[in-house]
Amino acid sequence: MQDENILDAAQQPGALGDMTPDDFRRYGHQMVDWMADYFAHVGEYPVLSRNTPGAIREALPAHPPVQPEPMESVFADFERVLLPGITHWNSPGFMAYFGITGSGPGVLGEMLASVLNVNAMLWRTSPAATELEQVTLDWLRQMLGLPAPLFGVINDTASSGVLYALAAAREATPHLFIRQRGMAGRHELPPLRCYTSQEAHSSVEKAAIVLGIGQEGLRKIPTDEQFRMDVAALEQAIEEDIARGVQPFAVVATVGTTSTTSIDPVPQIADLCERYGLWLHVDGSYGGMAAIDPAMRWVLAGCERADSLIVNPHKWLFTPIDCSVLYTRKAAVLKAAFSLVPEYLRNTESTGDEVPNLMDYGNALGRRFRSLKLWMIMRYFGQEGLAARIHAHHQLATHLTEWVNAAPDFEQMAPTNFSLVCLRAHPQDMDDEEELDALNERIMSEINAQGRFFLSHTKLHGQFTIRVAIGNLRTTEQDVRDLWAELQRLARP
Amino acid sequence: MQDENILDAAQQPGALGDMTPDDFRRYGHQMVDWMADYFAHVGEYPVLSRNTPGAIREALPAHPPVQPEPMESVFADFERVLLPGITHWNSPGFMAYFGITGSGPGVLGEMLASVLNVNAMLWRTSPAATELEQVTLDWLRQMLGLPAPLFGVINDTASSGVLYALAAAREATPHLFIRQRGMAGRHELPPLRCYTSQEAHSSVEKAAIVLGIGQEGLRKIPTDEQFRMDVAALEQAIEEDIARGVQPFAVVATVGTTSTTSIDPVPQIADLCERYGLWLHVDGSYGGMAAIDPAMRWVLAGCERADSLIVNPHKWLFTPIDCSVLYTRKAAVLKAAFSLVPEYLRNTESTGDEVPNLMDYGNALGRRFRSLKLWMIMRYFGQEGLAARIHAHHQLATHLTEWVNAAPDFEQMAPTNFSLVCLRAHPQDMDDEEELDALNERIMSEINAQGRFFLSHTKLHGQFTIRVAIGNLRTTEQDVRDLWAELQRLARP
Repeated sequence: MQDENILDAAQQPGALGDMTPDDFRRYGHQMVDWMADYFAHVGEYPVLSRNTPGAIREALPAHPPVQPEPMESVFADFERVLLPGITHWNSPGFMAYFGITGSGPGVLGEMLASVLNVNAMLWRTSPAATELEQVTLDWLRQMLGLPAPLFGVINDTASSGVLYALAAAREATPHLFIRQRGMAGRHELPPLRCYTSQEAHSSVEKAAIVLGIGQEGLRKIPTDEQFRMDVAALEQAIEEDIARGVQPFAVVATVGTTSTTSIDPVPQIADLCERYGLWLHVDGSYGGMAAIDPAMRWVLAGCERADSLIVNPHKWLFTPIDCSVLYTRKAAVLKAAFSLVPEYLRNTESTGDEVPNLMDYGNALGRRFRSLKLWMIMRYFGQEGLAARIHAHHQLATHLTEWVNAAPDFEQMAPTNFSLVCLRAHPQDMDDEEELDALNERIMSEINAQGRFFLSHTKLHGQFTIRVAIGNLRTTEQDVRDLWAELQRLARP
Repeated sequence: MQDENILDAAQQPGALGDMTPDDFRRYGHQMVDWMADYFAHVGEYPVLSRNTPGAIREALPAHPPVQPEPMESVFADFERVLLPGITHWNSPGFMAYFGITGSGPGVLGEMLASVLNVNAMLWRTSPAATELEQVTLDWLRQMLGLPAPLFGVINDTASSGVLYALAAAREATPHLFIRQRGMAGRHELPPLRCYTSQEAHSSVEKAAIVLGIGQEGLRKIPTDEQFRMDVAALEQAIEEDIARGVQPFAVVATVGTTSTTSIDPVPQIADLCERYGLWLHVDGSYGGMAAIDPAMRWVLAGCERADSLIVNPHKWLFTPIDCSVLYTRKAAVLKAAFSLVPEYLRNTESTGDEVPNLMDYGNALGRRFRSLKLWMIMRYFGQEGLAARIHAHHQLATHLTEWVNAAPDFEQMAPTNFSLVCLRAHPQDMDDEEELDALNERIMSEINAQGRFFLSHTKLHGQFTIRVAIGNLRTTEQDVRDLWAELQRLARP
């Protein structure tokens, strides 16, 4: 290669530069047409991919392309090779895990964010990204009915958020100096203990592992018959630990657990946390959003007393992944746990309190412009529109629950607090638990194989339980009625 | 609200459903036209936003919108209120920090990823996302000249990647049992020590804090006159620590430090790591990508012996943020550090080795379909096209370095190893270091205020140093010439 040629060529877009704006315009319009068609027809794909393991890897070349390829070929392979390997989370029939939606306004927001390609690590590296994040999260706070002031920051996932919250909790505990001195080899340091329920999300345990608290440093408190943390057992555990010289430092409560959407008794847990001086983190990743519906405002009762709280717009607020909000009443502690500013990131603006540098409130330095999609969703749907949609999903789940309870061959396995229904087929003449597990596993597998719906399961009291998670904006009452008919059909011998 | 009305309404897209596909098509086409125009004219905006702190917050309503608003209004506010608050990372004049590009094919990839909205936590939750991630990262491995097998996984940022790598390093250290038992209050546990250079990225220190190793558990090794880790000092530090009963467990080397792009002597560091049984992590977030250029393949010498290595396609491979690759030769250890599978995520596929569940290799459970944009970039540009672009950036930096060295009033402050030039104005009649600092700070501020370019700084040997970081696909030789002319003009009294 001749250097001078390269330098000349670098001045020509499309030669050694980026795709030309004209080509981008042409391909972009093609993509938008495909995307609009996808939105219109997403329900017609098998929801759960039917691919076998390794099929895509084998269909793609083992070596990288040496020469440029036309975008037409790339897109043709996307449709031919990749699309069959997609599990369609955006389908009305997706009712596994938690139903989510990458909504139209959210996708438009992602499009703009990706072309701007800003990294909002510092205020100055895109003031709009930092300030819009603060504005949208204050709007969301108001929609959830939480009192001001409440500092919010967007992370990729709730797994990151709970890690950061518990790092702050560790930092907030007096006399430990763990940020500076670490934990290993310090004989004066007591064992540390965090508490959560047996139904808490696995991310709490992962956070304990990462932070060096360890799995044994996370004590899982038993739950009651409705899968809620047993507050008396929590208090007893705290007392036991203190008596043994273990230092409690945090409790993680959940509003809407992953398995059943149970709601821990946050007000009573907050009482205990205040009495023992423990950081209270609330995981409302899925369930917290319900509070936007005025009829469901009660689900966040007590959360105004939490030190930190997570709600995920990418779960039940129709925001394309990823967008997880960590709120805290103790922003200074979160910052104290994480802030490190090297010389090359120092600047004269925003060293005061007026505007934050959001890199200071977590582990990740790089930050996408995630608030843009959230802002577009809030404005396009409006608070009442968002509340009505969440309410409608809740109602769909309530109706399914009523049908389950009215059917002699089915049973409800956990309270329907939000838009998730836990159920199983239980024919009147079948009492063997192994048979029941096998029957329900077969029903779920059959439905997933059919392609119109995708369901997942959990085990409650050891019993195989089908989870029907409603949450996609495209899911209609007819979808739920059709699923229910199919569940009933498959439950018959 | 009447429930039945809501259920009826939910069946109508656009009523209580998502934006209709027709509306999405209309707005999407408008967005694409705006995006193509933005690509064509991005160089005409002031690169660094001229907003004052709080301006955007004050320009937006304090309360959330109650009723839906037309997308036209939302987009009008995007242009009127938000756009002036954007720092244009995608501008040819962005030469601060590290120059990056959200390229056309990458943005098209983000568009498709956002409409699919898959969460690739498990293989089954989108086989295409998991397998394409493995394919693209193996292609990238080949492009970088690294030997197989090498397991790769995409994270949001290198900050997450180094956290995960050091968690794996901790897990790999025998007899500690930290995952299970934690670190606090264990009298048998020695203090743990990780080593990195004084020039390493702040994310290494953040990882040490989060992991409970602590800032004191990270020992920063001095560097030589070219800002490279001093291997003799590293060995002495390890010996000292062992003699004092401290347990070394990991070394983080850097290929392309943030301040100056210095390259640590990885082969010699790898020797030491092998001798002492330490995990070797290499941070090649920016510099690693240079190895795609055959002339620069040498920068990754020794990295084939690293236990883990990070390279960031969102830095110098033209990929919209975020996309950071963590490679490891010890995938089983990384998995052992993180894997936790609750019942609701269990499934029958992919429990073997054929296809991984990528949630098992890090803290974050949720995973965007990030490999799609990387795949589109690799195919659209081709390996040779990517190499030529990286080579061209390197050449632009080499030319600027030559001009600096030929100018009597300027000096080069660090070797130009990649596409970053560290320089300062140094008039022949000015020897006072405070004056020199003030002059260079003034030059940088003036250039940033003009709007065509955005530069950032570092301090080297205590001296204020201007960093010119080339890396955007739209940057031409003329841009670099114009910047150089302006630097020279401003350096004159």
